[in-house]
Amino acid sequence: MLSAVERKIEQFIVDLNDKEVRALYSKLPHGKRLRAKLILTIAGSGLSVIKTAAVVEMIHAASLLHDDVIDDAYTRRSRPSLNAVYGNKTAIMLGDILYSKGFLELNAISPEVAKIVSNAVVQLSLGELKDVSLSKTFNLDKEMYLEMIYQKTASLMEASAGAAAYLSGKDKTAYMTYGRNLGIAFQMIDDILDITMDTETLGKPALHDFEEGKTTLPYIYLYEALESKEAEKLKSLHGKKLTTDEQQWIKMMMHNTSVIQKSYNEAKVLIDEAIALMDEKGEKALSNIAIAMIERNF
Amino acid sequence: MLSAVERKIEQFIVDLNDKEVRALYSKLPHGKRLRAKLILTIAGSGLSVIKTAAVVEMIHAASLLHDDVIDDAYTRRSRPSLNAVYGNKTAIMLGDILYSKGFLELNAISPEVAKIVSNAVVQLSLGELKDVSLSKTFNLDKEMYLEMIYQKTASLMEASAGAAAYLSGKDKTAYMTYGRNLGIAFQMIDDILDITMDTETLGKPALHDFEEGKTTLPYIYLYEALESKEAEKLKSLHGKKLTTDEQQWIKMMMHNTSVIQKSYNEAKVLIDEAIALMDEKGEKALSNIAIAMIERNF
Repeated sequence: MLSAVERKIEQFIVDLNDKEVRALYSKLPHGKRLRAKLILTIAGSGLSVIKTAAVVEMIHAASLLHDDVIDDAYTRRSRPSLNAVYGNKTAIMLGDILYSKGFLELNAISPEVAKIVSNAVVQLSLGELKDVSLSKTFNLDKEMYLEMIYQKTASLMEASAGAAAYLSGKDKTAYMTYGRNLGIAFQMIDDILDITMDTETLGKPALHDFEEGKTTLPYIYLYEALESKEAEKLKSLHGKKLTTDEQQWIKMMMHNTSVIQKSYNEAKVLIDEAIALMDEKGEKALSNIAIAMIERNF
Repeated sequence: MLSAVERKIEQFIVDLNDKEVRALYSKLPHGKRLRAKLILTIAGSGLSVIKTAAVVEMIHAASLLHDDVIDDAYTRRSRPSLNAVYGNKTAIMLGDILYSKGFLELNAISPEVAKIVSNAVVQLSLGELKDVSLSKTFNLDKEMYLEMIYQKTASLMEASAGAAAYLSGKDKTAYMTYGRNLGIAFQMIDDILDITMDTETLGKPALHDFEEGKTTLPYIYLYEALESKEAEKLKSLHGKKLTTDEQQWIKMMMHNTSVIQKSYNEAKVLIDEAIALMDEKGEKALSNIAIAMIERNF
């Protein structure tokens, strides 16, 4: 069914009638298509469903293009990112094209779907700004971190599930909660993997987040758990290029304080809630998506 | 009436519930609000009309934010551009926020208005990419130039007029032609002013377009008009920082070949057609907007 989504995206791209856009789009990695998978699993494979999945994936691709420019990220999924190869400007422009074509096609699906998805894109773009702002300080406010990852990552998954539930006449609220929990847990785990995975598996430098100024959940918990002298040391390393020794020290402190496990458990609570909601509705495939997410280690 | 549009935009910004966005938006120059003026002049001041004008101006502001990043433009209307003060990344993110909030609000106006405006944003973003691509070569294809300025500048004016006509039950086709002609002529004149105005009046360096690799209408006509040796010289200067002598030479050649007048006349034909269309409909105020545009010299 996912191949129908790929074909629909390709058709939307061809519609644009611009050779350069076609060539650039063909260079983009397709990713896991997690949002499309959610939508199809909830709502089947009717034309409106396929279109919604295609639009959401185009919007997601647009947001990644802009994110990579904003985060100075030169690799994505172990390969050079589009901005690394074609420059930041091209990445910005291709992002704008994918966003706007996505919005145009939303109108042709349904006003309600358009509202749900475009509301999520507002949240997503506000989340990106908040992410950058928070990373300028040594943020220790867990609520701010959670709000930011909700906006930046979970809002579009929440909207994907909500739009799919709407299109298939299912209970929107439950599915949106499922999508939101999945999205927040997804980002929490991504943030954990930035610490626990090696560079090769991750496809980007490990502890990159902290070097970039991002204090994700394990860092917030670590600061709380450390004695004041060590907490000061952690703070002094924030937003800097770390030596191997400094990296080892952070990882050791995290090990000693079990903050990775604590963070993982927090993601697990959200996933368990999502699973319970779906089990109640007999949505085994959706429960399985949630289980796979908490078990992923790459 | 324009102040009602400003208030509506401010309300949309406040809706976002983000202090940083409010602060950033307050730093943006408001510009001429030409598109809002068009919309109100065509359709009056009902709530949907005000909302449409507000959305179009937010989208226009978003496109300028991204344009300034893409064109490395550090001044806008004689003042430092937002990217010059807050960095390219902030400009990209604020642009994304304004775009997405604009699209979200479009859904609340009417599906037809949403379709007209979001279609224009697709064209606008394709136009930006084409502008950058064309400027990598010494483009002498007038049709490509015209298509690009239609997409980049005229499409949103065309859509503004079309959405306003739709909202007020007027003849959409005629008003869209009016808006398109106005938009193409507006860009042609902008391109002429880049050559004829001094740096102080322009608020940016003169002959900047050609240095940036852009061969606008006067350059295309100049190349056609010059003897082969001089044409080669013109080509050799394309996309380079010009000395004062080289600038003087280009201006002298343009004077000798009357290509500025020829380009201006071409804009004038479009404006005359727009005026005739509006005169026919008794739309004096719209004819006057068109007259003011062809007479502007700053």
